[in-house]
Amino acid sequence: MVDTLRSGRSSRKGLGVQVSPSAQIEWCYNRFPVKKDYRKLSLKLHKEKRGKIEIVSRLPLRNKEDLSLAYTPGVAAVSSAIATDRKLAKVFTSSKSSVAVISDGSAVLGLGNIGPEAALPVMEGKAVLFKRFAGLDSFPIVLGTQDTEEIISAIKAIAPTFGAINLEDISAPRCFEIEERLKKELDIPIMHDDQHGTAVVVLAGLINALKLVKKKKEGVKMVVNGAGAAGTGVTKLLSLYGFKNILVCDRTGIIGKSRKDLSPSKRDLLKITNPQNISGSLTDALKNADIFIGVSQGNILKSKNIKMMSSNSIIFALANPVPEIILEEALKGGAKVYASGRSDLPNQINNVLVYPGIFKGVLESGAKQITDKMKIKAAEALAGIIKSPTANKIIPDPFDKRVVRAVSEAVKK
Amino acid sequence: MVDTLRSGRSSRKGLGVQVSPSAQIEWCYNRFPVKKDYRKLSLKLHKEKRGKIEIVSRLPLRNKEDLSLAYTPGVAAVSSAIATDRKLAKVFTSSKSSVAVISDGSAVLGLGNIGPEAALPVMEGKAVLFKRFAGLDSFPIVLGTQDTEEIISAIKAIAPTFGAINLEDISAPRCFEIEERLKKELDIPIMHDDQHGTAVVVLAGLINALKLVKKKKEGVKMVVNGAGAAGTGVTKLLSLYGFKNILVCDRTGIIGKSRKDLSPSKRDLLKITNPQNISGSLTDALKNADIFIGVSQGNILKSKNIKMMSSNSIIFALANPVPEIILEEALKGGAKVYASGRSDLPNQINNVLVYPGIFKGVLESGAKQITDKMKIKAAEALAGIIKSPTANKIIPDPFDKRVVRAVSEAVKK
Repeated sequence: MVDTLRSGRSSRKGLGVQVSPSAQIEWCYNRFPVKKDYRKLSLKLHKEKRGKIEIVSRLPLRNKEDLSLAYTPGVAAVSSAIATDRKLAKVFTSSKSSVAVISDGSAVLGLGNIGPEAALPVMEGKAVLFKRFAGLDSFPIVLGTQDTEEIISAIKAIAPTFGAINLEDISAPRCFEIEERLKKELDIPIMHDDQHGTAVVVLAGLINALKLVKKKKEGVKMVVNGAGAAGTGVTKLLSLYGFKNILVCDRTGIIGKSRKDLSPSKRDLLKITNPQNISGSLTDALKNADIFIGVSQGNILKSKNIKMMSSNSIIFALANPVPEIILEEALKGGAKVYASGRSDLPNQINNVLVYPGIFKGVLESGAKQITDKMKIKAAEALAGIIKSPTANKIIPDPFDKRVVRAVSEAVKK
Repeated sequence: MVDTLRSGRSSRKGLGVQVSPSAQIEWCYNRFPVKKDYRKLSLKLHKEKRGKIEIVSRLPLRNKEDLSLAYTPGVAAVSSAIATDRKLAKVFTSSKSSVAVISDGSAVLGLGNIGPEAALPVMEGKAVLFKRFAGLDSFPIVLGTQDTEEIISAIKAIAPTFGAINLEDISAPRCFEIEERLKKELDIPIMHDDQHGTAVVVLAGLINALKLVKKKKEGVKMVVNGAGAAGTGVTKLLSLYGFKNILVCDRTGIIGKSRKDLSPSKRDLLKITNPQNISGSLTDALKNADIFIGVSQGNILKSKNIKMMSSNSIIFALANPVPEIILEEALKGGAKVYASGRSDLPNQINNVLVYPGIFKGVLESGAKQITDKMKIKAAEALAGIIKSPTANKIIPDPFDKRVVRAVSEAVKK
């Protein structure tokens, strides 16, 4: 039991497969057969198209006259205008609608620290989703450094290019300091999506899941497994929203006062979690819990673990691409609501429901920060799209056209 | 005389107008009436279109299945493949064809140090010209720092995103160290276009101009006015190509051994220029010169200065948007060939003839550096397009479809 219940990286042993990322994906694909072989198809498509990002000109460039307007001499008038007032860059350039998707490749999908080049396909993907869902022009930037200060300096240096910055797949605890410092030192909206995008969509899902099981946020016991970027972001937002009894587990077990090994960011979580100062393992934490939020590692729970929870339990198994527990096991254990990160199952907890609308909203309103209040408004708006939640529908589909509008309008309020 | 002949910034006094960039442009537009008011039209067009850069997806994103291929779970296979061999990023991402156009806004067009936001319209323009002429996906990056070390660090940090880097409108002498260091410390092609793009197109024009006046590169006396990025780049390449007698002037006068005020980059020029160790002003330098290359400041020469040169003189008045001498004055002074940076006159010495092809060539060949040999090959190929040069046609038109092919093939050799 203990073997399969360890959270975090060490639990890879429990998978019964090799611990390399590709072996893990192999395991996932075998475990969750999909209609098509997405691996082969995706490789083929990326090779054929040579990646996903194409740059096109908004202005025509057919002849010398076009060049004289888009470039010299005409462009000198545009530059001169901005030189007198740099805010005019938002009028005359693409920066008003441009979002940088920036990663150092240190915590990419479920693949771990695979470096900037390997992170690029994911960042390209995120960039084109910004366009697809919010009409924003987003460009991926991958960084050849994983040093906190170098990352901060580089992002500050390139910031005048962009209207906003989406930090992505940067590992904890560096991601906390990087985001916090950039928010202080730059005057454009910055958001580390792994923390806050995840938090907003989890909160939206929970709002509807709680309606379904007729429980109140103030009374439920919740376990968040994983104290990385996502776990920390989720815990902070849920606490702020009014969840009172949250236990956070990392790979060592429950985060509590008796632990001597806690990083500053984990110690910070003590202020808002574990009110009864419990210690123990994830198994201990799960006893009588109403909600399990997994943002950790694939395949660490079985039905017997769910049986220890309260009745009508809510399971968000968000490890990607392999969830903490598969749907069948969760239901067998008595779960009432199951959500995961997978697109082939109901209730996909997908950040794409959140970040396009949040960035669209702040870029349109001209807000300089993405605040906690905005995140909560966004979650409520997203949840509100589903008028009558069911076990298989607590959250809208990413292609639901109401989503980006609801979220972007919510953050403008 | 001395007043109007000072080169460099101090000569602005000689313009008879205020020294602000916008006043200078005003002067230029009044001096060179154009068919349409490009200023107003360009401002209108940039505002309407909200800048020039649009990002589009090369992969379809119509439904969940498309998302599963462009993004998760399919993209994990692409990232895993690159994690095993980072060179595969050139196969599966857009980085193979992507060029960063990077500026700190310190020396933009003829406008000077106008800062990153004001530089952005120019960099966006350059980026879309890369697409228009070479099919490359180029993205503008403007930097919020003008510190040499910070610029180098930032560019090194973001380099894994790109296939190549075009440095642009960075002032001398910082541009020399920045380019040199990046060429050493990164393994992708880097080129500061103001230095080398200008040098290649000037060399191409001169090859044909010399044919026309029946003079040999080894025997001519040449004056390069301006020792900034362009002047330095031009002088180095022309010297390497075989021009023996070059005098470079800065705003103080001829760069010679007796000068105590020379920066390291100007002192370097002494090794390849001023063989007779002449000192004096630009006026002194022009005596019996065959070629004048102006990369300095508008309106500093009159016909009487050209009359002091050898017969059949060649004038490249490349200050932009106001040339060092206008066409009519140059011809009145006896010039045989006149070229400028202006699109409304014959013989436009335009970097767009060079950089798209050079970057296309090195990205296609996989070369890690843009070498001097490549630059000379590119210049020869560009010149070679004009089979029978005339005074009004020493260089092809940017829209001549043979240009990018000739240049890109030349750098692959």
